[in-house]
Amino acid sequence: MLSEVVTVCSQTTMKAIIQRVTKATVTVGEEQISSVGRGLCVLLGISVEDTQRDVDYIVRKILNLRLFEDDSGRAWTKSVMDRDFEVLCVSQFTLQCILKGNKPDFHSAMPAELAQPFYNSFLENMRSSYKPELIKDGKFGAYMQVHIQNDGPVTIELTSPTGPADPKQLSKQEKQQQRKEKTRSKGPSELTRDKGNLRSRQDPNASSGAEGDVSSEREP
Amino acid sequence: MLSEVVTVCSQTTMKAIIQRVTKATVTVGEEQISSVGRGLCVLLGISVEDTQRDVDYIVRKILNLRLFEDDSGRAWTKSVMDRDFEVLCVSQFTLQCILKGNKPDFHSAMPAELAQPFYNSFLENMRSSYKPELIKDGKFGAYMQVHIQNDGPVTIELTSPTGPADPKQLSKQEKQQQRKEKTRSKGPSELTRDKGNLRSRQDPNASSGAEGDVSSEREP
Repeated sequence: MLSEVVTVCSQTTMKAIIQRVTKATVTVGEEQISSVGRGLCVLLGISVEDTQRDVDYIVRKILNLRLFEDDSGRAWTKSVMDRDFEVLCVSQFTLQCILKGNKPDFHSAMPAELAQPFYNSFLENMRSSYKPELIKDGKFGAYMQVHIQNDGPVTIELTSPTGPADPKQLSKQEKQQQRKEKTRSKGPSELTRDKGNLRSRQDPNASSGAEGDVSSEREP
Repeated sequence: MLSEVVTVCSQTTMKAIIQRVTKATVTVGEEQISSVGRGLCVLLGISVEDTQRDVDYIVRKILNLRLFEDDSGRAWTKSVMDRDFEVLCVSQFTLQCILKGNKPDFHSAMPAELAQPFYNSFLENMRSSYKPELIKDGKFGAYMQVHIQNDGPVTIELTSPTGPADPKQLSKQEKQQQRKEKTRSKGPSELTRDKGNLRSRQDPNASSGAEGDVSSEREP
């Protein structure tokens, strides 16, 4: 059962790899076609199963995730929108990868002729939810060099909560997710695994990698 | 049930974001501390639950994943080891992120004082499994700028197959995974979801993003 489960979540939801950046650019051949300063670089993997509901969720999370510090340097307090920063979006079908041994297989990615309008609707949604001039794009389907100056580093993997299974199940899951978001202000107790809470009491400085500007601000 | 499942796989396995790179460097302050040419940039997120078995799996996959073309330009045929390319590894606790609404929580990341020796054992494993001089590192716990020139782009998310649940279950799952790898040469039919196969017949050019050098070589 667990095996099946991992298959479900690794194959058939929209995935976004969010990297916090100092700057990022896209070049095609010798030409630089896109550029952002501080903000986020989003690599977006669209699956065959994705719908506008997945787009809505991922857009909302990208724009509202608190990955930046505030003016006093307190980490994890401000979103890209709060800071008026930019977002570079690049379509990335390889995130919809199933490994066959060591060979990647991409048949769970949405086919290009469907993915292109779908990706455009994602961009439109990003622009209408924020300031359109701060949302940049790569070149869909082109062979690109994406220059990412990952700041921290800080990298977050986002997965849309909807899966491919029973629509009733999905609907219930989405409601649970939304309930969780609404109850966030009531405190973390019901949202965190017991074990996680226990460990956090043992050691508030969980893990590694970008200590410089972030570790001091970790909260339970 | 599905909700529980997503929680399992998003929280408690080792995660690696693999980016195929033309080059990559790490700077701390003004100093460049690490640099690779063609190869892979690996951002590694270690969870509180991870063991050496997760390390072994992730190392094997990173080194053997076929993310490069062969001499004739046929994509997805050669691994980083096949091509004698380099690997830049950077510890990245933020991959072990649980969202509380829009605030990231990192308590499922392994605490730093445990993660540092654990991460070092990952590096040792990488070096002993390949050519040690081709494995580069960031600076654990430092505030870094990781300059990633993502080539394609090509980005793969790897998740170790073991979860935190029943050890018997995990063992069974791992055996299934290994059986799959062994049977790869027998053909893809039993390794791919029926639906995936169906879609691949409908459209062999699934998806988008790095068409230039890869799409022509996609195989079922």
